Amino acid sequence: MHRFDRDELKLSRPRAFVERRAIRFQDIDAAGIIFYPRVLEMFHDAYGALLAFAGAPLPEVLRTGTWLAPVRHAEADYFKPLRFGDPVTVEICRAHLTETEATLGYRIARQEGGEVCVVGQVVHTFVERATFKRTPIPEGVRRALEAIEAAS
Amino acid sequence: MHRFDRDELKLSRPRAFVERRAIRFQDIDAAGIIFYPRVLEMFHDAYGALLAFAGAPLPEVLRTGTWLAPVRHAEADYFKPLRFGDPVTVEICRAHLTETEATLGYRIARQEGGEVCVVGQVVHTFVERATFKRTPIPEGVRRALEAIEAAS
Amino acid sequence: MHRFDRDELKLSRPRAFVERRAIRFQDIDAAGIIFYPRVLEMFHDAYGALLAFAGAPLPEVLRTGTWLAPVRHAEADYFKPLRFGDPVTVEICRAHLTETEATLGYRIARQEGGEVCVVGQVVHTFVERATFKRTPIPEGVRRALEAIEAAS
Amino acid sequence: MHRFDRDELKLSRPRAFVERRAIRFQDIDAAGIIFYPRVLEMFHDAYGALLAFAGAPLPEVLRTGTWLAPVRHAEADYFKPLRFGDPVTVEICRAHLTETEATLGYRIARQEGGEVCVVGQVVHTFVERATFKRTPIPEGVRRALEAIEAAS
Repeated sequence: MHRFDRDELKLSRPRAFVERRAIRFQDIDAAGIIFYPRVLEMFHDAYGALLAFAGAPLPEVLRTGTWLAPVRHAEADYFKPLRFGDPVTVEICRAHLTETEATLGYRIARQEGGEVCVVGQVVHTFVERATFKRTPIPEGVRRALEAIEAAS
Repeated sequence: MHRFDRDELKLSRPRAFVERRAIRFQDIDAAGIIFYPRVLEMFHDAYGALLAFAGAPLPEVLRTGTWLAPVRHAEADYFKPLRFGDPVTVEICRAHLTETEATLGYRIARQEGGEVCVVGQVVHTFVERATFKRTPIPEGVRRALEAIEAAS
Repeated sequence: MHRFDRDELKLSRPRAFVERRAIRFQDIDAAGIIFYPRVLEMFHDAYGALLAFAGAPLPEVLRTGTWLAPVRHAEADYFKPLRFGDPVTVEICRAHLTETEATLGYRIARQEGGEVCVVGQVVHTFVERATFKRTPIPEGVRRALEAIEAAS
Repeated sequence: MHRFDRDELKLSRPRAFVERRAIRFQDIDAAGIIFYPRVLEMFHDAYGALLAFAGAPLPEVLRTGTWLAPVRHAEADYFKPLRFGDPVTVEICRAHLTETEATLGYRIARQEGGEVCVVGQVVHTFVERATFKRTPIPEGVRRALEAIEAAS
């Protein structure tokens, strides 16, 4: 299983898939900062947007596809607290592919100033829907992820 | 569609299905009180527990059943703000059944002192899974809900 | 407390505050359709966007303001099931204001075809932050909501 | 920053803090299995229960304390998909403490049979509430975590 180095994930890349958003009201917890698992939801939202952008929208994949890409590993490192309303960029800045597995690297930075607040990575394993047995990364998805990988 | 009177929902009943819980860390929002849609999640958790208690656990119903009970209407009235850690009772205190529809009344009160903080009601319509056409309330579920209705 | 008529909320209005979005992966439940309280989160997201649009962004209000606008009542009516990826418009199509209270009417429709799937309404009570006592709707917020009310 | 070895986290320990629960209806995603960030919410629920058990309930800490314990790193490894209703144990089975930092190891297994489905670890950094500067782990919390550490 490939894992990126955390410090490398902090670095800005020449190309990345980028979503702009603000921290939501309901993603704050009783301590007044973002509830940390919500950051992984932001990763997943960006992942869904990437697939749609690449012509393999997840809703269609789930309706007609024969495969799933469950998460085998996920992690995040939190450097700066995010608060309600903070405008951030969520970047999918790295990818590493094997035949049946993809590791995606994420980076959340403030829109203004670019301070990196969180980095993370998520490993998806591609499996057959019916059996949960490993299957090669489907062609459309592979191309989308390779575009990120090439920029890494 | 049957709706209970909000003030009646505030009253304690001789019998009710009761869950005890505390307001969770992640259910607080940026204003420091419970994020209001989370109260409906608490209603739904109690509904699931009621069905399990009655011998019709929702996971099994979804695995083997031919029906669904989507929500047609849901509402809540908020009298007192709930904060992180507040210990509460969630009661399903009322039920009103027709052939294909059930209105359930909910009541959230502080465990200590019993102050009513929220009341609400949710109307479920029973439909065939395949077609989303109305179907009679299944016998097991009906019995569970009638036990609440009888106490109303 | 003002409540709109549910059937009126279904009608399209000459002016409304509109957000476009799609139903998210994580808002689906074990029955395969949107988990019904998530619709209220969509209402709240639109409400936050409206306030920002109107120059009274909620994060700033919470940081520097002396008031809160907790929800006193919320409800939704569900006509058609929403599924993962469905592209929808979330409209704040109605408003009714008193000195210290605002009822906002919501309408969720499919982007293509315009079929109304959900309507709802949320009543906010304006209170002093320190005491939770009623306070008049602040001027900036009032103006934003009046623009919707005038179109109603 | 201390990290446990993933394979060690899979092993059962002589003592651990254990919560029993079932996978919730709303924690399932559009692919029909648990939405992976929700597993971290389950970790956090167990962490809160541990602190309460140890006499340092988080709500009180947040109300009267001068410190916070934000998450610096979190990760999870997913071995088996969890589905709606699956009864599981969430164990805090490991702890590693430094003066200002705690790494907690988690393990989610099926109640029946004990199959390990997920392991994870979360690193909390203890900081002063006002300044977000590092501060020693408060005595009460330290004792609670040391009880887990001793069993590791």
